[in-house]
Amino acid sequence: MLCDLKDKFLNSIDILIKNLSSLPGIGKKSAARIAYYLLKTDKNYIHAFTNSICDAVEKIKNCKICGNYTESEICEICSDTMREKNIICVVEMPQDIAVIEATGIFNGQYHVLMGHISPIEGIGPDQINIKQLLQRLDKENISEIIIATNPSVEGDTTALYIQKLLAGKNIKMTKLASGLPVGGDLEYTDKLTLMRSIQGRLPL
Amino acid sequence: MLCDLKDKFLNSIDILIKNLSSLPGIGKKSAARIAYYLLKTDKNYIHAFTNSICDAVEKIKNCKICGNYTESEICEICSDTMREKNIICVVEMPQDIAVIEATGIFNGQYHVLMGHISPIEGIGPDQINIKQLLQRLDKENISEIIIATNPSVEGDTTALYIQKLLAGKNIKMTKLASGLPVGGDLEYTDKLTLMRSIQGRLPL
Repeated sequence: MLCDLKDKFLNSIDILIKNLSSLPGIGKKSAARIAYYLLKTDKNYIHAFTNSICDAVEKIKNCKICGNYTESEICEICSDTMREKNIICVVEMPQDIAVIEATGIFNGQYHVLMGHISPIEGIGPDQINIKQLLQRLDKENISEIIIATNPSVEGDTTALYIQKLLAGKNIKMTKLASGLPVGGDLEYTDKLTLMRSIQGRLPL
Repeated sequence: MLCDLKDKFLNSIDILIKNLSSLPGIGKKSAARIAYYLLKTDKNYIHAFTNSICDAVEKIKNCKICGNYTESEICEICSDTMREKNIICVVEMPQDIAVIEATGIFNGQYHVLMGHISPIEGIGPDQINIKQLLQRLDKENISEIIIATNPSVEGDTTALYIQKLLAGKNIKMTKLASGLPVGGDLEYTDKLTLMRSIQGRLPL
């Protein structure tokens, strides 16, 4: 992935550009732009910048309860006594928590699956944190589970699997509404989204 | 620019996202995506990645002759005996050299100004490597100078300044042609580009 044989003939700018372009969303041109920016920048900045990468990678671990990224054993959300304890929102990745928290509308607990079920990628239910979710349901007093997996084939499969798994238990199960994005245009909405939006139509 | 007082209350992911979003072309969302990607990545990769940044910043310096980035005293292009010695292409930044080299059409020398004249930013002719260009013209036997500054107000100002400065000398001066980009559409070309394209029309 990184330094192979060919790299012996590359200079340090080329290696830097190659490494930067392996980051998600960064093409070769953006990588070159960032590399030349870094070369022009103050050395103290570079030091702080590389340190912040190593720092995050060293310090951040998964919360023992929900799986969210945290610097402590238990994450801020799980240890917050002001949050509702009887409702869990199940998400695929820790970054999904940040997005939901930004809305400010949810005040319950989270559970991070760290992935989704995907037979193509060889990821079954045992490879993601579903067992841990079941253990939490035994220990904690949960009345509602919101399944907030991505609206993709894998996300929907995962949601369906969890739904069937918990069917016998006396827990209210919900999932995020699918439909028109706010500010979107009916004319340009894809068929599947519009279909779900009609199926999930709300009373006025 | 980096860690201010407020950062004491940020965790290491937030600091990493903040630092990443200060890179050119990286917004807050891309920064978050990269940060979460780095957290998931193998630690050896992180080590190689941060090392490649420090390595480039440590090793890369400006060529003593042309100002290009190099790991040696003299850059590869200046020390290449197979290249034409009597023609200099003047560019604003070292990254411009990489782009021109990629065309494979130019086989002469370069001179990097490390910027452009910009009264608004307080950059005068003395702040960029124009003096070094004059010194080269005294020492080296140059018959043509191609001015390849950016087609912007600052680039054009810099080109004009150099043109006037060298007016007395017996050196052929050229600049890059301005006009329609290949694959572009006449209908959507901006007025100024089309104007220059008409002014610089070529015989068939």
